[in-house]
Amino acid sequence: MSILVVGSVAFDTIATPSGQVTDILGGSATYFSLAASYFTNVRVVAVVGEDFTAKDEAVFTNRGVDVRGLERTAGKTFRWGGQYLDNLNEAKTDFTELNVFEKFQPRIPKEYADTQFLFLGNIHPTLQAAVRLEMDGVRLTGGDTMNYWIKSTPKELAETLKLMTVVLINDTETKMLAGEKNLPRAANKVLAMGPQALVVKHGEYGATIFFRAGAFGLGSHPFRAPALPIEEVKDPTGAGDSFAGGFMGYIAAQGELNREVLKRALFYGGVMGSFAVERFGTERLQQLTREEIEGRFQVFRELTHLG
Amino acid sequence: MSILVVGSVAFDTIATPSGQVTDILGGSATYFSLAASYFTNVRVVAVVGEDFTAKDEAVFTNRGVDVRGLERTAGKTFRWGGQYLDNLNEAKTDFTELNVFEKFQPRIPKEYADTQFLFLGNIHPTLQAAVRLEMDGVRLTGGDTMNYWIKSTPKELAETLKLMTVVLINDTETKMLAGEKNLPRAANKVLAMGPQALVVKHGEYGATIFFRAGAFGLGSHPFRAPALPIEEVKDPTGAGDSFAGGFMGYIAAQGELNREVLKRALFYGGVMGSFAVERFGTERLQQLTREEIEGRFQVFRELTHLG
Repeated sequence: MSILVVGSVAFDTIATPSGQVTDILGGSATYFSLAASYFTNVRVVAVVGEDFTAKDEAVFTNRGVDVRGLERTAGKTFRWGGQYLDNLNEAKTDFTELNVFEKFQPRIPKEYADTQFLFLGNIHPTLQAAVRLEMDGVRLTGGDTMNYWIKSTPKELAETLKLMTVVLINDTETKMLAGEKNLPRAANKVLAMGPQALVVKHGEYGATIFFRAGAFGLGSHPFRAPALPIEEVKDPTGAGDSFAGGFMGYIAAQGELNREVLKRALFYGGVMGSFAVERFGTERLQQLTREEIEGRFQVFRELTHLG
Repeated sequence: MSILVVGSVAFDTIATPSGQVTDILGGSATYFSLAASYFTNVRVVAVVGEDFTAKDEAVFTNRGVDVRGLERTAGKTFRWGGQYLDNLNEAKTDFTELNVFEKFQPRIPKEYADTQFLFLGNIHPTLQAAVRLEMDGVRLTGGDTMNYWIKSTPKELAETLKLMTVVLINDTETKMLAGEKNLPRAANKVLAMGPQALVVKHGEYGATIFFRAGAFGLGSHPFRAPALPIEEVKDPTGAGDSFAGGFMGYIAAQGELNREVLKRALFYGGVMGSFAVERFGTERLQQLTREEIEGRFQVFRELTHLG
């Protein structure tokens, strides 16, 4: 099944203890698309400027990503600069130039109308909601958000959360959204806001999926997938979006939607996140094989499963 | 097989968001002994003062713990006061009264000489080393330490680490000990200091065991066990020592020492830690059944294992 992602395409300038790069292709829709492309057909809706070249586009099309929803407009592409010199777990933003992204109004090509799986990247919740409402046939919607929207647009976000099947956010965002410090209690509060499941990303400690009672079959327990202990994280940028791409891409490729599928998806999310950080930008995600992905899935399994 | 623990017995005064208690029985040797007692015979070496009552002793003996190594001396028992009002993950110490613990010199009863498993609780590394060197027949030694010893007695600690088979510490202690921010790199540095395996406790995110190459059989991967997402942590005091008690107690009860045993032990560590925090002090650890423990082991398994 195809999956549609709506999000950002950006040129990033990044400094980490391993080095620095200027204006490399990034953005949530980019990382998501590449990660998901190893599992299923991906369609992208995003906006780029006149500086987006054929070479940049080829990063998508080489992986078979459908770029008919990639809108080109006058001006420059979104630019972000950040560093992880002191702390690989958290970016310090140096600059943000929204450029063409400032007035982004997602336009869904009519060829995308039959899409059954949707991922709403981290954009204004009102735009997320508009996209979801336009896509009648969607079976499962995943969505991201961030501290900025939780603080500045709580009402709009509350409406949008009702439209998401699975929310993927980190510990801090979960606790902030719920107004509750204890993680499982915070998770239950977020689930009460609408979604059927909540994926809480713990960075180097993996991720936990919490299910609403009765959602995706029986059972009351959450499920936890590890992250790979990595000796050299070259560039953490895009790890969360790559996680979402692996998670949603795996789900979209399955016939059924049940807890076992979502649990495995959590492992594939971790797998794709672990590849993303091995090189700067999207370099590693451009050149993977399905064999490498399955190999790392087995490593994740050995990391957590008793004999 | 019997296991011997050397550590502290204390009276704790604790405040958490769930309430407060004064002068309740605690200390590393106490939590460890109770947790390990569900798996194997436990022997304890510690010191108490004249205020340690028959009722306190019964907490140990009711669980079959051998208290012949519990030395009574003139003065008051070690007292600690702390609170977790702002942060359940880290205690804020209100006071420490070492009392009889200040001049603690572990004395091993001759009846303990045949002990094969040893746990060195968090005391001065020179005392830890002396105990280990006195115990000729020990097959496996687990040991704890803390920031204070890492900073103030690095040379003594370096010698003691060579005598430990498995070191159990948290993320911060691992990174401090190694002088390295990246966890897997820090873990490798600690392993190079002597131990065959290193258990890094991640608090609410579980724990990871790293193996020295070739130790406990083949394989190069670490192994990660979860912690239970707990909605109400009443009192985190003793969680780490209860973890160590479950981990070491399970190991001591097995015939063989191999990676699979250590992996399962990591799960049992998490299980015992999860029980400990459900009530204040040692209350929950005093009244468990083996069935409850196995039930929770299954929950930990379901929390992490794919179908």
